[in-house]
Amino acid sequence: MANTNGSTQNGNGTIALGRYLWERIHQVGVNHIFGVPGDFNLTLLDHVYDVDGLEWVGNTNELNAAYAADGYARVKNGAGCLVTTHGVGELSALNAIAGAMTEQVKVIHVVGQTSLKMQKNRMMIHHSIGFSPDHQMFNKAAKDFRVAAAEIQSAQGAAEEIDRVLRECFVKSGPVYLFVPIDLVDQQVPSKALETPLNLEPEADEDAVKDASQRILEAIASSKSPALFVDCLVQRHQAVEEARQLVDALGIPVYTSNMGKGIIDENHQNYVDLYNGVPSRPGVEDAFSKHDFVVVLGNLPSDTNSGGFTRNILPNSAYVNTHDVSIKGWKTSSKVPIKATIKSLTSLASKYTIPKVENPLHTLPERPLEDDRDSKQITQSWVWHRLAEFMQPHDVVYGETGTAAFGLPDAQFPPNTTWITQTYYGSIGYATPSAFGADLALADLATHKGTLRGRTLLVTGDGSMMLTVQEIGNMVKQNLPILIILINNAGYTIERVIHGARQSYNDIVPFNYKHMLPFFNMPEGEAEKCYHRAETKAELEEILAKDGVKKPQKVQVVEIVMDMLDVPWRLSSQIATRGPEAVKEMKEAGFKVRELQKSGGFWN
Amino acid sequence: MANTNGSTQNGNGTIALGRYLWERIHQVGVNHIFGVPGDFNLTLLDHVYDVDGLEWVGNTNELNAAYAADGYARVKNGAGCLVTTHGVGELSALNAIAGAMTEQVKVIHVVGQTSLKMQKNRMMIHHSIGFSPDHQMFNKAAKDFRVAAAEIQSAQGAAEEIDRVLRECFVKSGPVYLFVPIDLVDQQVPSKALETPLNLEPEADEDAVKDASQRILEAIASSKSPALFVDCLVQRHQAVEEARQLVDALGIPVYTSNMGKGIIDENHQNYVDLYNGVPSRPGVEDAFSKHDFVVVLGNLPSDTNSGGFTRNILPNSAYVNTHDVSIKGWKTSSKVPIKATIKSLTSLASKYTIPKVENPLHTLPERPLEDDRDSKQITQSWVWHRLAEFMQPHDVVYGETGTAAFGLPDAQFPPNTTWITQTYYGSIGYATPSAFGADLALADLATHKGTLRGRTLLVTGDGSMMLTVQEIGNMVKQNLPILIILINNAGYTIERVIHGARQSYNDIVPFNYKHMLPFFNMPEGEAEKCYHRAETKAELEEILAKDGVKKPQKVQVVEIVMDMLDVPWRLSSQIATRGPEAVKEMKEAGFKVRELQKSGGFWN
Repeated sequence: MANTNGSTQNGNGTIALGRYLWERIHQVGVNHIFGVPGDFNLTLLDHVYDVDGLEWVGNTNELNAAYAADGYARVKNGAGCLVTTHGVGELSALNAIAGAMTEQVKVIHVVGQTSLKMQKNRMMIHHSIGFSPDHQMFNKAAKDFRVAAAEIQSAQGAAEEIDRVLRECFVKSGPVYLFVPIDLVDQQVPSKALETPLNLEPEADEDAVKDASQRILEAIASSKSPALFVDCLVQRHQAVEEARQLVDALGIPVYTSNMGKGIIDENHQNYVDLYNGVPSRPGVEDAFSKHDFVVVLGNLPSDTNSGGFTRNILPNSAYVNTHDVSIKGWKTSSKVPIKATIKSLTSLASKYTIPKVENPLHTLPERPLEDDRDSKQITQSWVWHRLAEFMQPHDVVYGETGTAAFGLPDAQFPPNTTWITQTYYGSIGYATPSAFGADLALADLATHKGTLRGRTLLVTGDGSMMLTVQEIGNMVKQNLPILIILINNAGYTIERVIHGARQSYNDIVPFNYKHMLPFFNMPEGEAEKCYHRAETKAELEEILAKDGVKKPQKVQVVEIVMDMLDVPWRLSSQIATRGPEAVKEMKEAGFKVRELQKSGGFWN
Repeated sequence: MANTNGSTQNGNGTIALGRYLWERIHQVGVNHIFGVPGDFNLTLLDHVYDVDGLEWVGNTNELNAAYAADGYARVKNGAGCLVTTHGVGELSALNAIAGAMTEQVKVIHVVGQTSLKMQKNRMMIHHSIGFSPDHQMFNKAAKDFRVAAAEIQSAQGAAEEIDRVLRECFVKSGPVYLFVPIDLVDQQVPSKALETPLNLEPEADEDAVKDASQRILEAIASSKSPALFVDCLVQRHQAVEEARQLVDALGIPVYTSNMGKGIIDENHQNYVDLYNGVPSRPGVEDAFSKHDFVVVLGNLPSDTNSGGFTRNILPNSAYVNTHDVSIKGWKTSSKVPIKATIKSLTSLASKYTIPKVENPLHTLPERPLEDDRDSKQITQSWVWHRLAEFMQPHDVVYGETGTAAFGLPDAQFPPNTTWITQTYYGSIGYATPSAFGADLALADLATHKGTLRGRTLLVTGDGSMMLTVQEIGNMVKQNLPILIILINNAGYTIERVIHGARQSYNDIVPFNYKHMLPFFNMPEGEAEKCYHRAETKAELEEILAKDGVKKPQKVQVVEIVMDMLDVPWRLSSQIATRGPEAVKEMKEAGFKVRELQKSGGFWN
């Protein structure tokens, strides 16, 4: 049984393996454990309660638990953790783990496995597959979706394996697995290692870091119009502060990607705009193309994060990648981590003469006036800018895959906005449970680090919310003041604009959101005050002016009704990059498609 | 684009690949397609609408879609089908597919993949993993969870691959995958094969089948007290009718497993009881042990289906497995399919003198009287028998993993009950979406085969329902008259009895079920009539007497409130098979543990 006296070891300098694992996970900054109990993890979960400052937070299912851990990790700027049980639990979480893999989010997935005897004898224990089951089959299915795994099969060496894998989680920034057979949970392991915190920094070759930085700075100094392009992997590899300092140190124009929004203050004098290739704000592509040298920080050039691969960055640019740097054909080893490199760039910058480049922002043409600007109804062309006005510094803002992920990037965010979107992986359903984890992380940071308690704004759609809606019950249970802004546009509008605008497969199962909070156990009287519905701009204005919405004390739901064939121009333009057939199909279905800035651009 | 003129081919004797696929799937008995649209399956879904009698039925998420296909397959006594999209969709469904694998259910999983060009160039298309993504990574992750897969990479040979894999789905009885790159959907394939229905019967060596049957019948004839033991794989391999005829032909005592319930009419004169090893009704183990020869049909001896491996079947028994037969150390090739063998046994039986064996049912001791029999509250010892009285012939009855799966087996079912439980895989959350699929199948059978329209009784718990609750919205949308009997016992009682009876990890996120149907878009006035809640036996009696509950026309919810530490004796007895420590822990936590029949049994 667990040692419950609060000390981390017994007289022999040993500690239960289960406890060792949780102490280490707590040491790397995790204060909340997500997951779902199952008979192969229950005794392991007992040890969560033994660790001071570590708290069990169950979820409504395993997929949601893994999404919650992902959101928690992003906001904590560290790791999130979930526990599942053998087979059924670990597989249910797998899609969210794959998302963390491709989005480079630090998720620790602890799996309670069957006993070594059951494994060895291939016993037909429930949750297994077949007549002579390989109990590691589920582990094997997940092997491409993680950066490391501790496949523990003995107490001996288990502590070292846990340490190695937790370090890899941070160094590589991605999901890791810790597999714990149930009979090993209470076996003893040496506790001494716990006295020394894990080194979570990636290995750095300091000479190479300096060399790479100097080459970049020399190239900047010898260029006429250099610029910075900031992408999301800066955030994943914990270099946000460093990137902000570099922007100050260089004083050159800064662009960002869809996924990189929020890293650099959009009110900063050097900030230009989001550059997303052809589907950019008019003038941005031209402005960007005039730079003769660009330093790209933390690039993640997926189709959805690069305007369908139309983002045009000169081949002789510099790429500060997560673990190496390349510049004009020259490339470092993989011991040049992004955080150290950005830091080095900042500290060496003053030794170089950086060209003075005027921010092209003020030379950009006016934003086009939308046809539907006078509509009393709520339109895509209006709503995102309006919501951005509602944002406050230190908010965490979700743009769920759908119109929100393509609409919100059009708006200017306040400083210190944490922008969360799963633009590369794009798994609908992600945002709701992730926002649950994110808000718990905000509360945690406010408690333990004295950080300002921002709000979590979950901006999602009726299609996406359907997939993982039950986690809203957990928001109510944990009394988290999350503001849910729900676009109700009668189905999968992001799919309608791609194909089958009016096909029944793009309809969803309709919910009546008025009854959502009472179903999730909020007392009826309260729930009535926490639910709001707007069909017109005037109604939305009234709602956004309410104190209970501006400073939520409980979950708030703001349902916004919009037309099912209205989409943000950034989304239709992204689809348009597929070619003239795609444009024709959109137009025939009744979608507006904005003429993009470059005649002779991508489809003429 | 799709050929929408209703004919299955154009003038050249060819047909779009997408249409070929759906025509074939429809031909093997599938009339409803489950799934979630995504941009890599939309054009494929267009072809669903081209096939007469085939209907698209979207789901609230992919896991639920796969569970629905599983339930549909079980009730149709054939296959179910779902469609997902590249990566995010296929992985989300994987846990349900693994369940179908180990429970041997015919689920056809169609995946809309990225184009061949995207795959070949390893393009960073959304839903992919990493910088140089292998788009087949998700396919590879699923390879141990299916009996066959068509990894289509060209229109050439695609039709043959589809045919091969659909045949395997039936022959092996398990999930199969059909991967369709989006650019192949509208390529032409020869349509001629569609004129010949697929042969879905497993290959049979007729001589070997006859030889095996004769050996079994000889062994029966030379035994003194033979018996039959019927398990679930009889159902999966479509031999239910054949097994019923064999029972009549042999006239010897019949036992069943947890998972095999319902196959043989429990009112049949030869039916004894469920034999689950030590955790059986008093007297059953003794009665079973007196048989000197047993024929086991369709055995699936997982821990949960064999009383924790305590089911004692003599080594010299006969096993009629899905594709072979073994008897007293002798074994056939794998061309001896269960259905053919059972048929052969029946047809040859009259040539042998079968010993007359009295059904030991009437010699069994009375069922023990439970301490809580006079409780006004609803108890586990009472509720399952009461619900069984409520059942009617032709009902489909779900016992979700939890107290329902261990409680309902104690009750006697009416004839022609389809009993659905995922006892080997045991993934909580399974039953709700599966019941959605099952009821659609019941409606379909009534329409197309004139089968009596039974009711679907979804008996589940508050813990399990939480995981997949949104599919109830689909029951409302499709207006399916499913009766949901929900045990509200404040958490994961099945986990509490295993370990951590009062630990917070065994609590769940509470829902207020009164608001469930209105949230899922049932008009408020109707919803009020369709929701029922019982805290006492008297209240439950009143509810079960209502016409709207007995003959549901819409979804009905009957919430039954029970004590969180009350469990069916079959569950605590199953846990008790783990040994004296487990018994001690249960007793200390306050659970009742029935003394089992055999002194000197498993823990004394």
